[in-house]
Amino acid sequence: MRATTRRPYSRAELERLIAPKSIALVGASPRAGSFGMRTLENLAQYRGEIFAVNAKYDRIGERPCYPSLKALPRAPDCAVLVVPRDGVEAALEEAAACGAGSAIVYASGYGEMDHAGRAAAQARLAKIARAAGMPMLGPNCMGLVNNALRAGITFIPEYALTPHRSGPIAIVSQSGALGYSLAQAVERSVGIRYCFSAGNSADVDVADLVAAVAEDPEVRAIACLFEGVPSAARLLEAGEVARRADKPVVVFKLGISEGGAAAARSHTGSLAGSAAAWHALFERAGFIRVDDYEALVEYARLFSFAGPPAAPGVAVISGSGGAGVMAADKAARYAVPMPQPLEATGKALRAVVPEFGAARNPCDPTGQVLSNPESFGQCCDAMLGDPQYGALVLAMTVATKEVAALRTRQIGELARKQDKPIAVVWVSEWLQGPGTEAYESDERLVLFRSMDRCFAALAAWHARAAAVPAAPVTRLSSAQAAEATRSILAAAGGKLTEAGSKRVLAAYGIGVAPERAAASAEAAVAAARDTGFPVVLKIDSPQIPHKTEAGGVRLGLADEGAVRAAYGEIVAAARRYAPSAEIRGVLVQPMAPRGVEIIVGARVDPEVGPMVVVGSGGVLAELLADSAAALAPVSFAQARALLLRLRGMKLLEGYRGTPAADIDAVCEAIVRISEFAADFADLVAEIDVNPLLACPDGAVALDALIVMRDR
Amino acid sequence: MRATTRRPYSRAELERLIAPKSIALVGASPRAGSFGMRTLENLAQYRGEIFAVNAKYDRIGERPCYPSLKALPRAPDCAVLVVPRDGVEAALEEAAACGAGSAIVYASGYGEMDHAGRAAAQARLAKIARAAGMPMLGPNCMGLVNNALRAGITFIPEYALTPHRSGPIAIVSQSGALGYSLAQAVERSVGIRYCFSAGNSADVDVADLVAAVAEDPEVRAIACLFEGVPSAARLLEAGEVARRADKPVVVFKLGISEGGAAAARSHTGSLAGSAAAWHALFERAGFIRVDDYEALVEYARLFSFAGPPAAPGVAVISGSGGAGVMAADKAARYAVPMPQPLEATGKALRAVVPEFGAARNPCDPTGQVLSNPESFGQCCDAMLGDPQYGALVLAMTVATKEVAALRTRQIGELARKQDKPIAVVWVSEWLQGPGTEAYESDERLVLFRSMDRCFAALAAWHARAAAVPAAPVTRLSSAQAAEATRSILAAAGGKLTEAGSKRVLAAYGIGVAPERAAASAEAAVAAARDTGFPVVLKIDSPQIPHKTEAGGVRLGLADEGAVRAAYGEIVAAARRYAPSAEIRGVLVQPMAPRGVEIIVGARVDPEVGPMVVVGSGGVLAELLADSAAALAPVSFAQARALLLRLRGMKLLEGYRGTPAADIDAVCEAIVRISEFAADFADLVAEIDVNPLLACPDGAVALDALIVMRDR
Repeated sequence: MRATTRRPYSRAELERLIAPKSIALVGASPRAGSFGMRTLENLAQYRGEIFAVNAKYDRIGERPCYPSLKALPRAPDCAVLVVPRDGVEAALEEAAACGAGSAIVYASGYGEMDHAGRAAAQARLAKIARAAGMPMLGPNCMGLVNNALRAGITFIPEYALTPHRSGPIAIVSQSGALGYSLAQAVERSVGIRYCFSAGNSADVDVADLVAAVAEDPEVRAIACLFEGVPSAARLLEAGEVARRADKPVVVFKLGISEGGAAAARSHTGSLAGSAAAWHALFERAGFIRVDDYEALVEYARLFSFAGPPAAPGVAVISGSGGAGVMAADKAARYAVPMPQPLEATGKALRAVVPEFGAARNPCDPTGQVLSNPESFGQCCDAMLGDPQYGALVLAMTVATKEVAALRTRQIGELARKQDKPIAVVWVSEWLQGPGTEAYESDERLVLFRSMDRCFAALAAWHARAAAVPAAPVTRLSSAQAAEATRSILAAAGGKLTEAGSKRVLAAYGIGVAPERAAASAEAAVAAARDTGFPVVLKIDSPQIPHKTEAGGVRLGLADEGAVRAAYGEIVAAARRYAPSAEIRGVLVQPMAPRGVEIIVGARVDPEVGPMVVVGSGGVLAELLADSAAALAPVSFAQARALLLRLRGMKLLEGYRGTPAADIDAVCEAIVRISEFAADFADLVAEIDVNPLLACPDGAVALDALIVMRDR
Repeated sequence: MRATTRRPYSRAELERLIAPKSIALVGASPRAGSFGMRTLENLAQYRGEIFAVNAKYDRIGERPCYPSLKALPRAPDCAVLVVPRDGVEAALEEAAACGAGSAIVYASGYGEMDHAGRAAAQARLAKIARAAGMPMLGPNCMGLVNNALRAGITFIPEYALTPHRSGPIAIVSQSGALGYSLAQAVERSVGIRYCFSAGNSADVDVADLVAAVAEDPEVRAIACLFEGVPSAARLLEAGEVARRADKPVVVFKLGISEGGAAAARSHTGSLAGSAAAWHALFERAGFIRVDDYEALVEYARLFSFAGPPAAPGVAVISGSGGAGVMAADKAARYAVPMPQPLEATGKALRAVVPEFGAARNPCDPTGQVLSNPESFGQCCDAMLGDPQYGALVLAMTVATKEVAALRTRQIGELARKQDKPIAVVWVSEWLQGPGTEAYESDERLVLFRSMDRCFAALAAWHARAAAVPAAPVTRLSSAQAAEATRSILAAAGGKLTEAGSKRVLAAYGIGVAPERAAASAEAAVAAARDTGFPVVLKIDSPQIPHKTEAGGVRLGLADEGAVRAAYGEIVAAARRYAPSAEIRGVLVQPMAPRGVEIIVGARVDPEVGPMVVVGSGGVLAELLADSAAALAPVSFAQARALLLRLRGMKLLEGYRGTPAADIDAVCEAIVRISEFAADFADLVAEIDVNPLLACPDGAVALDALIVMRDR
């Protein structure tokens, strides 16, 4: 993890970058198609002051051109560096010296290249910007658009030709091409206030931008997409800013696929791949995750105007029976309830729906009533008036232009008349068909181009309303736990055995199976006598972490003879397995009580940081990836929520005669393990408690392994 | 199942319906907006002969109007009935009498209503049509479009205004609104030859239409969507016609959600809900299933021109690094390989890709090279020339109109130059952006509006090429099995016990656990002595199918005393559980050998017909829906393929010291059970073998229950 402790920029600190009153274009050029000329063209309708800067020209078109930033009459809010890479550092120094309020660097060829020199050059740019208190966007970025100011501070083609339609949505993208492709939704009349491309994010990153626009009162929803961030922690802080401002953030993460991480599924460290880590981060940040690019604007539209649902039910009206069935299928898929109308509602529907239509939910008033504006409105009114429904979905199929226009006007009026959101699903391949622009320009409506995404979004809308804000975590483990652990880790010298790992768990207050070390067969027999038969013998060697593979475990040894024989066999097997290993002897444990095996692990994700992972143990662990992850540390309630996600949870609740396990004790162990992971994120790579035995009266770690980081 | 044994119509039989040379419009009307007038308008460019029929008018516009069908100079190929419902039957009789080659009935208010009288009226229409050998589309349909003839034989609005662009795709829809909404893709320049709406499918249904268009040499791919069909078997026959003609059929089924079928998951009958049944049917038919409406045209486009893949790898070129990452994520999701280029390919890429781009797969030639047609073409050529790649994906983001136009021309030329399909993904919210029409009108290209759907479609393309045509099923069970079973079923009088069910299994050659009936405690002891201890006792009562719930099962009885005591307890528990049940005594079985429990069931789906379902047994059955289904009967290879889909398959292969099970024996049992289900689809509702114990040397049914249909 590239740890960066810097907090996100505040809205005020970024004001001169995202809403500049004056812009200097360093490297302005009269050459058609040049980045400088394109940026100038994209600023054609900008209402602030523009300074062209280039020593080669006196004027560019009608505009005077200054020889340098120093020569400007006053410091610009934003200095846009359109100079080639070799000139960037000097230009940035000059911008800092002249007191520019912010900088944008287009040039590529920095940190995105696998080249130490270029990374160092990028770091120098960041240092100049930070030292001057001059927030910098880029390098390798495509600038930003502020439609409220009609400012296209970007070289993207043809911004000048598009309608500069502002609105409640902010797009915060790392990729310029993907961000601006989203922003093209303005061509379909979607109002978009900002679009940013953070590029290499050497200074200002998507976390800063999300936090800044969350504090903009005109912004109502944020669509965010990125590939990587310098600091995942800052995303959490940005999430906190957005939560306080009640601004929904819809996020799409690129680069989420895992190459072969599924291989060692029973090994906790890999139970959670990088996708799981990011999903856990977004959950903690309160972000609404989508897995498809196309969903970003649609979700942002819904969340930009829809308050918390008045009721969980969704009503569907469609001019096609088939589209209604599609809606019901998708509602079932996303567990969105579609209750039948109340008696009074049904009566109102029956009054206008023909006998071969459907006066139910989904309601099919048939083509006849859809051509008849009055009765269509009556259907909508009846459904919206039913207290069971929190939202109305209208599935629009092919229609004449007149009918479509009529319907569109009606639906717009309905949307303004009441508080329940209306989603229009455009069930047509004619994507730009009649009415779509009107729907998209109406800020009280959301248009979906997919029934699936409509119901997925409604489910996410319900989930956001139901989500309890994360409680501040109260620590369960003692203040001394970390200190005691530090000594154990120091003594172990970078490599912990099972016994050492268990001592750490014990320091954190986690129940561990009692065990005694024995360096000879006779010592093992004596330990077994003290422990009480039957016992388990396990090899004790720092070089043999996976004991079963080495033939180093024997279960259910019932008497002294069995223990004596097993000692010799285990040691011999371990020697064959790892001839150069230091064999200290064996560990003697009592046989475990009856219980349900679960796996609790933690790992420090290189990008996201410490996280805890809970999974089903035993057979289930090998047959299915039954696991759930959260950022560490977790609260007791969060630990319980993780357990509830497991399919294996049924086993813990008592199953086929097995008594119910002590779920509170399991939760407590999860919390304590997560606290250890968070405390030692800098030293520990992963911890694997496999199994944690969940018994009717407590939970005990039967085996544990802590792997330290390579330093 | 509404069994209809009629075979699909042949292409020749439907010729006069789908490609009529003359059309009579019964109920033609000069009134603007009437269905008659709309149909006339939609036939404005039709090249065949049109007869307007209506006794009220002499002329409609310029056109002469005939008083009746009888008055026509010759019989029309197609009689379109635009008359109100009350007049339909008489008009259809008249069409039959005058020798019309086919009929289309628009009127609603037949089988779609929950009303016996209306269903009977629909049946009368079908009877008239069948008796006359006059194929009928409808009632409650929206007609059809044949773009090759410029014939819009439909009342959908504004067909006359759209370009009548024919092409390689046929749309076969039950729903008129959804079908014609798809057909609107012609507005985006997609070539569509036919669009049908089968409506209530009283005579001609989607199976007929799929088979008919599959035999049309100009059709290259079929997009099919429907809610229900009169006969699922006919869909299989249509699939066979399409397979022989090598015409891919992409299918979207409406009404696939299951209301609460997940409840009794461990009960085999409900392991497979209706969705699973339909999926099994589509698999058997060789159809390519999609779960989203929007996917239909995109998939059909890909399949309309892409031959079998030359290699499994896919190359991606994108002008945006982010879009390339998106592609890699989706490729991972659908297991589509994206291998790195061969050395020579890499060299060719490096020659044109700037150092801050990516000369790999996904290839990011950066905006610079995308603006430069020559080097963009070189990248494409290099990738297409690499034998690892069977397809090329181009991810298009925002661009100037000039660059977009240049690229589009280039890509079109590339597509024509070679045989590997090129898919263009329009990564933009500007859905109708520059170039899209050109891409969509090019029949050697496919445009996707979603990266996810692009890779899902490529995966389906690979899967279709890999699918082995279903081998003709060779029967495993003996010819006498069905006969013997018929006697057992007759003797049981509609209700089978476990013992009776097992006799049926035995007749079909399936190994069953030996068992002896005992009507008293002493008889049970004697049976146990013969069987050998330990034994299992189970209650024997025709009224108690679920014995464990009734306290009617005791395992591991080790001696005579235990058997005697258990007999009394079981009988008492059963009496308490079902006081009015006939208690015959108990069944005595030996304790089962060690093995892996699986569930094999079969059921007769009311729509799809007999199917076999295989699932994991024991704990897994309760924790996860681990099951796979196929139409019955299955071949040995198909049974093995079902097993391979189970996550629990690992257990059968030997796991943690358990020896491998006799998988051949399990497959054989699956085949035999599927044969029973197919043989008795008319009498049996479901069969549940739970568990079938898979042992190292065979498979044995420990428990079985056959449920007969309510008659």
